[in-house]
Amino acid sequence: MDMKKEIMETSIRLFGEKGFTETSIQDIVDAIGVTKGTFYYYFNSKQELLKDIHLDYIKAILKQQELIVTDPDKDCKTKMRDIIYMLIQNIRTKRQSARIFLREMRNLSGEHVEQIKQKRDEFRQNFQRLIEKGIEQGEFKSGLRADMITLGILGMTNWSYQWYRPDGDVSEEELVDIYVNMILNGIQNN
Amino acid sequence: MDMKKEIMETSIRLFGEKGFTETSIQDIVDAIGVTKGTFYYYFNSKQELLKDIHLDYIKAILKQQELIVTDPDKDCKTKMRDIIYMLIQNIRTKRQSARIFLREMRNLSGEHVEQIKQKRDEFRQNFQRLIEKGIEQGEFKSGLRADMITLGILGMTNWSYQWYRPDGDVSEEELVDIYVNMILNGIQNN
Repeated sequence: MDMKKEIMETSIRLFGEKGFTETSIQDIVDAIGVTKGTFYYYFNSKQELLKDIHLDYIKAILKQQELIVTDPDKDCKTKMRDIIYMLIQNIRTKRQSARIFLREMRNLSGEHVEQIKQKRDEFRQNFQRLIEKGIEQGEFKSGLRADMITLGILGMTNWSYQWYRPDGDVSEEELVDIYVNMILNGIQNN
Repeated sequence: MDMKKEIMETSIRLFGEKGFTETSIQDIVDAIGVTKGTFYYYFNSKQELLKDIHLDYIKAILKQQELIVTDPDKDCKTKMRDIIYMLIQNIRTKRQSARIFLREMRNLSGEHVEQIKQKRDEFRQNFQRLIEKGIEQGEFKSGLRADMITLGILGMTNWSYQWYRPDGDVSEEELVDIYVNMILNGIQNN
């Protein structure tokens, strides 16, 4: 593993365990066994490192999302499901970076915040376009507020990072089924 | 206002603006114009103050929830709606404490965490019982996983604290309508 990547992965672990504010650059270099000089060769500051962690995470998710939405053989419903499933799977596969992504936004410095917000917005807008397309194509009800529906669905999914344990009694597939079923069909007994 | 309450309200504001870790006891007493001695007369530590802020917040919400669920004249659907509405309204009426409640959990010390977790669990379980009752009474579909549905609905609602602006173009009532409509009837065009 190259050193930049090693610094990032060690920091992801330490930030996840102790929080960004509570972790010093000294803690990071001590955990790897290098000097502060090495750190500053790759990053100007702890804030820049945090920005790079955020950027890596959101870029990977955007890429996964793009693969899903550009598939020509699936309908919007299935694509919506695939995105929710991808996010739920990331709880297991990217636990620590996801936690940092969701918790440490406020510790980004001003110039960096904009860069990350733009990418987050992009993800949300792609999802919203998918809902809008589903409405146009008659898969989803007409008259829906696609923007609010998007925020509701992403909220439900993102919140899972707070409580969902992939090794518990509900599998990732089951959780996604339950969510998607509620989103598509509702819980009311008609 | 009594001094204890004044310390709590000033801290809620400062923690909300700067974060718990970044706010010192000195910052708090400076903002009020008293000495650290005054602070320590009411609280043993900053952690204890944070615990009291959490406890106040969750107790108030539990009380509001109790009023809703014990109403003998409403069905489960309406009560579900009332709870979601209460939580969305709190974004405006209790913005700062809500933010602290949702963000600063990890800064509670071990002994305090349990106390707060218990109350949070109580809120979730009350909601889950409401969903279960709705299933029993035929208002909601049979075979639903009430526990997961509960976490999904509360997730969607809690996540609103991240993005919803009560003074924006979607009113609280409209947002609740959109959510409740999706939860009850789904978005799929049948």
